[in-house]
Amino acid sequence: MFDIIYSLEMLGVIAFAISGMIAAKSKNMDPVGVFTIGFVTALGGGTLRDLMMDNHPLYWIKHQEQPILILGMAIVFSYWTHASRIKEARIVLPDAIGLGIFTILGAQLALDLGHSWFIASLLGVMTGTFGGALRDTLCNEVPFIFRKDQIYASISFAGCWLYFICQWALESETLALNIGLLFIVVVRLLAVRFDIRLQRDPHQDPQH
Amino acid sequence: MFDIIYSLEMLGVIAFAISGMIAAKSKNMDPVGVFTIGFVTALGGGTLRDLMMDNHPLYWIKHQEQPILILGMAIVFSYWTHASRIKEARIVLPDAIGLGIFTILGAQLALDLGHSWFIASLLGVMTGTFGGALRDTLCNEVPFIFRKDQIYASISFAGCWLYFICQWALESETLALNIGLLFIVVVRLLAVRFDIRLQRDPHQDPQH
Amino acid sequence: MFDIIYSLEMLGVIAFAISGMIAAKSKNMDPVGVFTIGFVTALGGGTLRDLMMDNHPLYWIKHQEQPILILGMAIVFSYWTHASRIKEARIVLPDAIGLGIFTILGAQLALDLGHSWFIASLLGVMTGTFGGALRDTLCNEVPFIFRKDQIYASISFAGCWLYFICQWALESETLALNIGLLFIVVVRLLAVRFDIRLQRDPHQDPQH
Repeated sequence: MFDIIYSLEMLGVIAFAISGMIAAKSKNMDPVGVFTIGFVTALGGGTLRDLMMDNHPLYWIKHQEQPILILGMAIVFSYWTHASRIKEARIVLPDAIGLGIFTILGAQLALDLGHSWFIASLLGVMTGTFGGALRDTLCNEVPFIFRKDQIYASISFAGCWLYFICQWALESETLALNIGLLFIVVVRLLAVRFDIRLQRDPHQDPQH
Repeated sequence: MFDIIYSLEMLGVIAFAISGMIAAKSKNMDPVGVFTIGFVTALGGGTLRDLMMDNHPLYWIKHQEQPILILGMAIVFSYWTHASRIKEARIVLPDAIGLGIFTILGAQLALDLGHSWFIASLLGVMTGTFGGALRDTLCNEVPFIFRKDQIYASISFAGCWLYFICQWALESETLALNIGLLFIVVVRLLAVRFDIRLQRDPHQDPQH
Repeated sequence: MFDIIYSLEMLGVIAFAISGMIAAKSKNMDPVGVFTIGFVTALGGGTLRDLMMDNHPLYWIKHQEQPILILGMAIVFSYWTHASRIKEARIVLPDAIGLGIFTILGAQLALDLGHSWFIASLLGVMTGTFGGALRDTLCNEVPFIFRKDQIYASISFAGCWLYFICQWALESETLALNIGLLFIVVVRLLAVRFDIRLQRDPHQDPQH
């Protein structure tokens, strides 16, 4: 079980770090900025989760290969890629993968520590969304909470409950993990592709 | 004693959640935004307090009826009220009640855990003001720290010391709690009503 | 050993508090704003460090003379100095001293708690830079991460590694501490004086 969890965590860290570095690079940040944004995007959600649940040492302190990997990625991104080749739209896929993995792993850890389904779903959503929220706050002028162009936290929340129900009904942790994770990634990509929203903004032009 | 503390805490959570949802709704946010702002306004101060004092599990993790209540309130606010009927000025009363309750409960918990009056007053002010500061930062263009239109943290600080002195002089915890709390709520409402400030801004037009 | 550490910590708190209060005063903030900015600048980095390493009680809760001193300084700064006499450029020296002291003390505490050099360098940089980052975020319109006019976090990171190597090579903790600290302060001042950057901004006029 541990190996699957750890492999997923590593994949989530890489995906979110890439999304953060694309955002930083598209804003023409210097290498320290690229590393900082990559670091907070990849490790921010898990740090918040561990602080909220008093789960020490923090996972990036326990697994120092994760920040070392992010440092290496930041050097490559800063010096070997050209800002002109980085499109901010490329952020969508790594962001969706990171959202799915961290949401489910956050919820899974909370269940392990004995929390209820409801508390675990809140902690899952925080773990999945906080890194991206920090990235958007540091890289964009518009705070993330104002941008209602696509559903985001709602997909994360629904994915948690799908994971809980599958875990309870199928009695297979691994299968339930994968179903919850795939649900979040696929629905998130569909929501971006077809521009699905929770509520239409009456002041906004629908064609816009 | 516990029942009074818990009832006050619940009232503070409801008051701050209402203030956050009014702010979110007046900015025409979607249901996830309304829940998020309600959640961070109501639970942000207590979460900061518990993290600073290493008081685990966090109170909203221990009492999951509080986030469940906020979720229910967010659904009602989002679908059963019209944005046009929400005036941001309505925020003043629930905000003052939340400020009073959380300030005094934060200070009281710090005293219980053996901290000095000075440290307890700092933790009381943080508990009382952090939720509202997050709400204002997420909902307004102007950061809360720039807005010196009314005294806010100073009332919270003075209320803590009034509570300590009453507790020491009157030897009644409940009476002292209520005096400190009422002081903060009443003085805050008077400060808004009569536009009392610590320092006049020389660059600002007094009629403005 | 403890006395040197504590004296340095006190000096760092005073230096960062001054830098925060200069920033707050130059923005014409009221006394509560001056205290708040002084407090978060001086104690923000150490609070983040202690939370990340689960090192409780927080150092300003253990040493309440530090927040008391900041309160006293804020009163003096607010009422006995004129905003017109405060130039924001004066921030450079206290900021460099605070950066140097907190970086090295953060890294030193992390080593004491058994962390690796790499993790200790990350925690050192966080301790040294977070207070100033909060100050800049609360006092400036431009988020600190966008300002690439001078190298800052890179000097802090290099200073940590110089301290580790000196400690390992010289086998003298005190000497290594002082070398790391002086390196950061001097290089930071030189970087500001000669406008050294990690990467030239292609969109920016070099004369600007």
